[in-house]
Amino acid sequence: MRTRIYLTFILSLSFAVNAAAQTIAAPTTTATTAATAATAVVAPAQQQHHLMPVPASVRFNAGRLPVGKSFNVAVRGQADPRLQAGIARFLRRIEGRTVMELSRGLAGDAASATFVVETGGAGKAVPSVEEDESYTLEVSDRQAVLKSANTVGALRGLETFLQLLDSDRDGYFIPSVQIQDRPRFPWRGLLIDVARHYQPMDVLKRNLDAMAAVKLNVLHWHLTEDQGFRIESKKFPRLHTMGSDGQFYTQDEAREIIAYARERGIRVVPEFDMPGHATAWLVGHPELGSAPGPYTIERGAGIFEPALDPTREEVYKFLDVFLGEMAALFPDSYLHIGGDENEGKQWDRNPRIQAFMKEKGIKDNHALQTYFNKRLLTILKRHGKTMMGWDEIFQPDLPQEVVIHSWRGPAALAEAAKKGYKGVLSAGYYIDLIFPTSQHYAVDPIPAGSTLTDAEAAHVLGGEATMWSEWVSPETIDSRIWPRTAAIAERLWSPRETTDVEDMYRRLSVVSLRLEELGLTHEKNQALMLRRLAGGRDIAPLQTLVSVVEPVKEYRRYQQRPQTMLSPLTGLIDAARPDAEAARRFSAQVEGLLSDAPRFDAHAQQVRTTLMQWMSAAPELEAMIDRSPALHEARPLAKDLAELGATGLEALSYISRGVAPAAEWRDARLAALERIAKPKAALEFPVIPSVRQLVFAASEISRLKQLTPADWRAQIKTLSTPPRK
Amino acid sequence: MRTRIYLTFILSLSFAVNAAAQTIAAPTTTATTAATAATAVVAPAQQQHHLMPVPASVRFNAGRLPVGKSFNVAVRGQADPRLQAGIARFLRRIEGRTVMELSRGLAGDAASATFVVETGGAGKAVPSVEEDESYTLEVSDRQAVLKSANTVGALRGLETFLQLLDSDRDGYFIPSVQIQDRPRFPWRGLLIDVARHYQPMDVLKRNLDAMAAVKLNVLHWHLTEDQGFRIESKKFPRLHTMGSDGQFYTQDEAREIIAYARERGIRVVPEFDMPGHATAWLVGHPELGSAPGPYTIERGAGIFEPALDPTREEVYKFLDVFLGEMAALFPDSYLHIGGDENEGKQWDRNPRIQAFMKEKGIKDNHALQTYFNKRLLTILKRHGKTMMGWDEIFQPDLPQEVVIHSWRGPAALAEAAKKGYKGVLSAGYYIDLIFPTSQHYAVDPIPAGSTLTDAEAAHVLGGEATMWSEWVSPETIDSRIWPRTAAIAERLWSPRETTDVEDMYRRLSVVSLRLEELGLTHEKNQALMLRRLAGGRDIAPLQTLVSVVEPVKEYRRYQQRPQTMLSPLTGLIDAARPDAEAARRFSAQVEGLLSDAPRFDAHAQQVRTTLMQWMSAAPELEAMIDRSPALHEARPLAKDLAELGATGLEALSYISRGVAPAAEWRDARLAALERIAKPKAALEFPVIPSVRQLVFAASEISRLKQLTPADWRAQIKTLSTPPRK
Repeated sequence: MRTRIYLTFILSLSFAVNAAAQTIAAPTTTATTAATAATAVVAPAQQQHHLMPVPASVRFNAGRLPVGKSFNVAVRGQADPRLQAGIARFLRRIEGRTVMELSRGLAGDAASATFVVETGGAGKAVPSVEEDESYTLEVSDRQAVLKSANTVGALRGLETFLQLLDSDRDGYFIPSVQIQDRPRFPWRGLLIDVARHYQPMDVLKRNLDAMAAVKLNVLHWHLTEDQGFRIESKKFPRLHTMGSDGQFYTQDEAREIIAYARERGIRVVPEFDMPGHATAWLVGHPELGSAPGPYTIERGAGIFEPALDPTREEVYKFLDVFLGEMAALFPDSYLHIGGDENEGKQWDRNPRIQAFMKEKGIKDNHALQTYFNKRLLTILKRHGKTMMGWDEIFQPDLPQEVVIHSWRGPAALAEAAKKGYKGVLSAGYYIDLIFPTSQHYAVDPIPAGSTLTDAEAAHVLGGEATMWSEWVSPETIDSRIWPRTAAIAERLWSPRETTDVEDMYRRLSVVSLRLEELGLTHEKNQALMLRRLAGGRDIAPLQTLVSVVEPVKEYRRYQQRPQTMLSPLTGLIDAARPDAEAARRFSAQVEGLLSDAPRFDAHAQQVRTTLMQWMSAAPELEAMIDRSPALHEARPLAKDLAELGATGLEALSYISRGVAPAAEWRDARLAALERIAKPKAALEFPVIPSVRQLVFAASEISRLKQLTPADWRAQIKTLSTPPRK
Repeated sequence: MRTRIYLTFILSLSFAVNAAAQTIAAPTTTATTAATAATAVVAPAQQQHHLMPVPASVRFNAGRLPVGKSFNVAVRGQADPRLQAGIARFLRRIEGRTVMELSRGLAGDAASATFVVETGGAGKAVPSVEEDESYTLEVSDRQAVLKSANTVGALRGLETFLQLLDSDRDGYFIPSVQIQDRPRFPWRGLLIDVARHYQPMDVLKRNLDAMAAVKLNVLHWHLTEDQGFRIESKKFPRLHTMGSDGQFYTQDEAREIIAYARERGIRVVPEFDMPGHATAWLVGHPELGSAPGPYTIERGAGIFEPALDPTREEVYKFLDVFLGEMAALFPDSYLHIGGDENEGKQWDRNPRIQAFMKEKGIKDNHALQTYFNKRLLTILKRHGKTMMGWDEIFQPDLPQEVVIHSWRGPAALAEAAKKGYKGVLSAGYYIDLIFPTSQHYAVDPIPAGSTLTDAEAAHVLGGEATMWSEWVSPETIDSRIWPRTAAIAERLWSPRETTDVEDMYRRLSVVSLRLEELGLTHEKNQALMLRRLAGGRDIAPLQTLVSVVEPVKEYRRYQQRPQTMLSPLTGLIDAARPDAEAARRFSAQVEGLLSDAPRFDAHAQQVRTTLMQWMSAAPELEAMIDRSPALHEARPLAKDLAELGATGLEALSYISRGVAPAAEWRDARLAALERIAKPKAALEFPVIPSVRQLVFAASEISRLKQLTPADWRAQIKTLSTPPRK
């Protein structure tokens, strides 16, 4: 599901590059105020809030519940250790934000407590896809009351409460509100690939905290790959000792992660990818392979040939013991066997395997893999697990009890659901591909217009964002996962009708900062990476550049800037973040400016300031690049940035004077923009369509001045289309 | 050694408040360029470098060794696993900075390798104060060669190499250089108090990495206190289970830290503080106390009464078992028993203890503590440990083999040394007191003019920076330790003559950024804390404020802004950093400006820009403070900042026009500065002396214009003295 996904993704969802560019340009001016919007004034009913995911039902009322030093929490009904620990963490987070010391422990008297948490039970001992996560939260001037069937629902409600915490001159408060909430889908996951790049325990823990904050409930732990076997096996220690460069999780550590996740109402589903993606297994156990070996840990990215041999009984004996060991270690009732991207080349070349297929009447490699899967299914059933695998395992003969994990898309998922298979969607949620949040946000596991019956729809369990880790290190991984994954979390939790992209971005900006309180580094690590690249403290010009570039999308990074799994991930591309916020802001401002025809006043000053900043950053950038060889690859970008600034300023000047430039100017500028649009250092400028809009607007200013603002607004979209030659 | 230290410190070292203020103002303009100085051009012999600590001998030559993709390391002689791991980490750090993938493993052919490491042996199995840490490093155009007696010396040399890495337009390189290096003192430590505030494993690990980077070699692990008992005892589990709020290190974790430290050539000396500072012991074992109890974990800061009972044999039996367990856990040959700040109030009130003293002829509490210490000494000797304790244990009867840890100062240490006691200095290195780096840097364990003979001087083993943790959290602790501790590390490693404060600050600024590559958060966490306080992304005005304030010094924070060990450490004071760099830069600029008499041109524009920034930040700050109750305490600071800006600008205007203001203006401004000098929110403005200089200069401008620059320079110092009324 790695390299192939791009094409399928494009075809099934029609996310062409131009469409993506337009999506970036789409948000209007409201988004620009999102950053400082954390303090909206409370007004009844329809007020803006910063809840993400949006609850199933929210109704604001007049009034507020002050949160002061006397704030305390009482529990009515049960209070198991998990709930108590959850409340303790909740209180520490309020303390952190408010700098007030609150009383420890629970209040004795629920009637007089500020906040009452009432839960019916402790919830399941092992977190389950069947857990009831619903809750209600009612906040009045006098008290807040959170009710849930069990502790997990209460944990979800505590996160909602934390997102409601607001402040103004009079102090901290929770607006009066009535919330009834429950998830739309029961399976809301984040896959973390710890195989391509190992991620230390603290990375996993802080990401579990962040997952809980946005109500995700499955950590899909992608533990084995061509590039690494990351889990200790006591039965077959050569798996991890020879397959991991010493970077693996001990079984104690795995238990620690499982317990940490459970404390937050999160399941841990392990994946042991086979029969392909298995090179690292074979380093210590070449006898499992379909070719004799020897094998070494794979350092490249892509699809590789090594595959387990599905024709040998010894392999199944081995897997029975290994999967038995893992089934005991991981309590979740699901176990993911991967199953993706096995091209069967080793099988084709192995005469013994060919003979086996002939003898058994197995017609092709797909059928052979289905044979393998069925054997696995028997093993997993014996160990009490439900088997799950990627799209490829969905073959004619596949037993219905297997869960399909789809990288192909909602249509493939619906097809499986109609045939009675349960499924989880990841197509459209590949956050490693560096698409903007809006694009992931538009992907629905059961899109509007779905023809699934209710019973069929119930087979669509939910979705998972996938953090494939070819190009992330512990230093950068948070910035690839967050904040975008919060919007995917919303898609999977909130009602289908929650689709306002502008409002999503407004809330996302607030959520992103609040995730920092959990130790997430997605915001703060950029500055450190730029300081290291610049070799000094003055990084302002570099920040200007990096704020308006994004890594190239899909799998182009590897094509344009080849690296291995051993390469440092400390370059400018690693410091750059997906879905550049400053670029979005600029696009919104340009759109606002052009919509303000015929005066062209709105945002003119902001747009001008930004464009001048781009121009003036260039000479300082040049000097910095001279000193820092690691930045040499950025030299053309600095030049491009200055040219974008100059082009925009020239266009702005024409627009504000109401004078059209010569056609030659327009053609030269458009040609330059096409040059600039070519990625350098695997980075690209998402602001190009906006600058192009300015150039078009300038060149057609005489005509455009005659239009009404409404007409003008309609024209703008067409301006971002490149000129036909 | 906690609350008493201030007075002793002041008396013994004459660090009066005014002196401190002048120290802040002292650095001249060179310091202002330190931030961008990472790329000095290579020139022979006397060139500027960024080495910290400065080696015993450095001689730069013409030429350079390029560091490119083919850079590799060969080992000559032995290559134990510790050296190999050290070289692997070394290579990863070069990769991180240069964004070049280097070859893994060691080069086979030393003759053609870029860098050859030649060590005589693996070093001691247990890191020791007797380890030979010396090394030589010779870098030519063709090759770098590092030689050392053992792996520890090689690890020190690898850090030097990393500090030498430089770059320019032509690429990365190491300047040609000859270094012979060895530490001045064998004991160079950092005490981390994990008792007042528990610090997670990753905090300790990243600080061990930072220690190694500046050649510190002792982690003094302050494990027990009134506020927490942080180490697992399998013999007496109630110690940690009841005394730690669940926040303790398991013995496995302790071994992990010890191994991690050893890998970096760092010893781990544990401290079990007794008989005082022992409340947390008594929560689970009240029978050890000198009063019946019950006891609860202490939440306040200060000196508390609970003390072990030195008169009961059961206590020694307990300690024998406990210390035996700890002696086996911690391999270092030293064990610290604390011994500080026991006031004996429980002893005074306990008739049985009084009777015991009378019976044994023990004349006072000091003598009783010495009795206790001697009993401890016997126990520790039996378990093979050298006993170490704070100054208080230095009583007439103390056996000479005990090591004194001094919070009293170099004179006390010298006195002990003359009597044959070994000692370690921490007076002057109390980094929790928020003094500027320059102040710590001036403290020498054996100051110039010492009357110690060589043999006596050898008893002074070195020193330790002490990170007492009343007011630090995992989020802020790095910013209290770093970068200041790097200058203390230099004091303890480098020749006594290395005392140029300006040059220290220039290098410190570079070192501080390089420490970030190890995961240290001292630079990057401030922005996150300000975002949380501001509730948004736009923190520029808050950064302006926080860049020119510092937390109050010594123990005034607690007096002015009382908190407990349970309070959140997320306020503005926690975001503020010691030894504010922007304040130092401003002071240097003002001094440069005033030294430029009679033109007063130099730095005028920078000073004006800064002052205007202070003024213009105020209204934005006001709006931010309105929205964020956690910032309400900063309201008067915002006003002060604006007034400092306005005052400075007015003064600057008089100075540049050469016109003196009326005496009333001067008096009103000076009175205002006195008001502003009163701390608010336990924060103060270190820039006040510089603004006062501007006011004085303005008011005496007519006279001063007549002076020569040299006279004028002499006058400046006197201008920072407050006016006499």
